[in-house]
Amino acid sequence: MRLKDVLAKAGVKDSAVYTAHYGNDVHLSGDSEKEVISRGVPIDNAMAEDGIIAWDMNGQDIPALHGFPLRLVIPGYPGSACQKYLTKITIRDQEHDGAKMTGYSYRLPAYPVSPGTEVPEQDMVVMTEMPVKSLVTFPRTGTEVASGTASEVRGHAWAGNGDVAAMHVSIDFGQTWQEAKLDPPPNRFAWQRWRADVTLPQAGYYEVWARATDKNGLSQPVTTPGWNPRGYGNNMVHRIALIAT
Amino acid sequence: MRLKDVLAKAGVKDSAVYTAHYGNDVHLSGDSEKEVISRGVPIDNAMAEDGIIAWDMNGQDIPALHGFPLRLVIPGYPGSACQKYLTKITIRDQEHDGAKMTGYSYRLPAYPVSPGTEVPEQDMVVMTEMPVKSLVTFPRTGTEVASGTASEVRGHAWAGNGDVAAMHVSIDFGQTWQEAKLDPPPNRFAWQRWRADVTLPQAGYYEVWARATDKNGLSQPVTTPGWNPRGYGNNMVHRIALIAT
Repeated sequence: MRLKDVLAKAGVKDSAVYTAHYGNDVHLSGDSEKEVISRGVPIDNAMAEDGIIAWDMNGQDIPALHGFPLRLVIPGYPGSACQKYLTKITIRDQEHDGAKMTGYSYRLPAYPVSPGTEVPEQDMVVMTEMPVKSLVTFPRTGTEVASGTASEVRGHAWAGNGDVAAMHVSIDFGQTWQEAKLDPPPNRFAWQRWRADVTLPQAGYYEVWARATDKNGLSQPVTTPGWNPRGYGNNMVHRIALIAT
Repeated sequence: MRLKDVLAKAGVKDSAVYTAHYGNDVHLSGDSEKEVISRGVPIDNAMAEDGIIAWDMNGQDIPALHGFPLRLVIPGYPGSACQKYLTKITIRDQEHDGAKMTGYSYRLPAYPVSPGTEVPEQDMVVMTEMPVKSLVTFPRTGTEVASGTASEVRGHAWAGNGDVAAMHVSIDFGQTWQEAKLDPPPNRFAWQRWRADVTLPQAGYYEVWARATDKNGLSQPVTTPGWNPRGYGNNMVHRIALIAT
């Protein structure tokens, strides 16, 4: 069920700024005295087309691991806002301040900082969009392949701001990149499958690096994309080793 | 004076394969018993247009540091073959085996190897071309610049196989790249100057990464370009920090 329909039915006032999500969860420590995660999203994200309250996954009840019986899903947004075991949503006229909303939790510096900087808490802002990312899912790292002939490499790519625009792979540590074949997503914000044929020129050790580019032209970086205190949003390229024989 | 003219005057037989360079040098340790570096180049490199025996630099005798009174210069080739204090060149019918020509000196594995591999000596081959490279020479790393306005960044680029074809800079850790203005070289194999105007969007910490691309489309990598036992040919991008105010 769409989140926006549920919220609209409950009634959303003009003063609405943020949601607050609550679930039948326990603290990771198991200590029932400790505050349970309760995050939220800006009202525009909550009222967008794509947010859902899910009770079904692949035709079956959502597994416990994924949040049975009800799970929020806000595509493109950090997964921590997708409350599991959902019991309650409230609407606030300011940013939510539940557990894991404040301090350094799921927050980034409001300005770029040098590695290791101790950023004042009041300069941290909520992370609201996941950067473009991709994975190599085949073959397994360390696989032996024949040199001089094409070997298929494939994986998935996604972006917090919509469809991935392009996918490239490199077999020479980023000195050159070749375009991969990229499928459209089955639906908005879904993983996109990609594949490429790579030919390793001679016997030896190679790495396959995979790099997705989002619709704004931002690519995954080869190293970490700027430092932040908790290391959020690290979307550096995934790499696997291939041994050419 | 061109090296090829000197060699042609001395006479080069069809059996010529390699040069061997000797200089009035001493071992780095100062120990006069130790063998002094003596390297050479394939005869085709020696007979190319660009190799010179130099005695003059910027209208003056070559400084002692650079090899007074005579210095070989083989452009595009690893600098270790550019013998200082040159006294003798012999022509060989096989690869030279002087000090620093054999074993792991200025040699690369004949095939790509995984980091840390102990490569058998007989699998090492002489490095014969320097990969494309560039430096940021202005401003100094850590310089403060105003955000929201253009700041000039500049430097030099070169490649072992001829002219550099393109130069790019990134201010977002390689997520996007902008093309820099690249001057043609004053002469073949000379440094090419480049410059770019970068605008840092807000106050904070940034890095400028500079990436040259050679005429074959190979770019400097963001990390080390494959491992080799002595770490030769590391042409990863140069980066400086800029502090936007």
